[in-house]
Amino acid sequence: MILDSILRNLKAQNDQLNRLLSQISDEQLAQEVAPGKNTGVYLLGHIIAANEGMLTLFGAGDKMYPELEMAFLRTPDKSGQEMPTPAALRDMWAKSSAALQELFTNLPAEEWSNRHTAVSEADFANEPHRNKINVLLSRLLHQAYHVGQIALLK
Amino acid sequence: MILDSILRNLKAQNDQLNRLLSQISDEQLAQEVAPGKNTGVYLLGHIIAANEGMLTLFGAGDKMYPELEMAFLRTPDKSGQEMPTPAALRDMWAKSSAALQELFTNLPAEEWSNRHTAVSEADFANEPHRNKINVLLSRLLHQAYHVGQIALLK
Repeated sequence: MILDSILRNLKAQNDQLNRLLSQISDEQLAQEVAPGKNTGVYLLGHIIAANEGMLTLFGAGDKMYPELEMAFLRTPDKSGQEMPTPAALRDMWAKSSAALQELFTNLPAEEWSNRHTAVSEADFANEPHRNKINVLLSRLLHQAYHVGQIALLK
Repeated sequence: MILDSILRNLKAQNDQLNRLLSQISDEQLAQEVAPGKNTGVYLLGHIIAANEGMLTLFGAGDKMYPELEMAFLRTPDKSGQEMPTPAALRDMWAKSSAALQELFTNLPAEEWSNRHTAVSEADFANEPHRNKINVLLSRLLHQAYHVGQIALLK
């Protein structure tokens, strides 16, 4: 029941970002969300890269777009890193969010309280909260935080 | 276990907002987060007012600051409504977030999947997802969304 609620909220958050992306142009997305702050393009790439890290953390295979890591996770905006076009990022968001949603929907209920792959069995014995549900919740809150910023471009 | 994870993430989100508030002055908080957008003062009042609605939704008594409702929930920023000072809002945030955290920590586990007070028993039979856990999750995501905006004032 609680899990169902989390997955409903995940879907609502993804729907909200999809709606927002349909309301702003590529030109708007390339703007800074506030003077001197990150661009919408950076924040969208950052959300995609952070979220798809869950594919490996859940032991569900490799990242779909590992090339995003350098530009959107390891370096700040405007570092001179090569970035995909807004159109390419929109496509990556659609495909990676769909893949993750499918992964979560099909994960057996008992799997959610198991450790993620970045924590060892020994550490997990002492820190049982480092489980899959915690990863999803914190990434979802991270997404909401940055979507609030992208929404300023409307 | 899942509930424990949600309460951990709630605490982390509140800690993040507390840290942010300690880093920005009252003058910064009174600024717009981006040109022509909401001020930090409005967003903080909006978070407090939305969150403390959970006191009534959880059947835990009246709102602590019902006077916030008109300025921060029913009308947009810069409507000419009277607003508390930044200092008063900081105090309201501290007190209301502590009261809510205590309410959630002490709520019996089985209560979380029960309906909230804004849904009737008949409606709840058809829409069992309209429970307390769903209210907390959506308010928490709402908070993260606006905290991302307030963070632009740093």
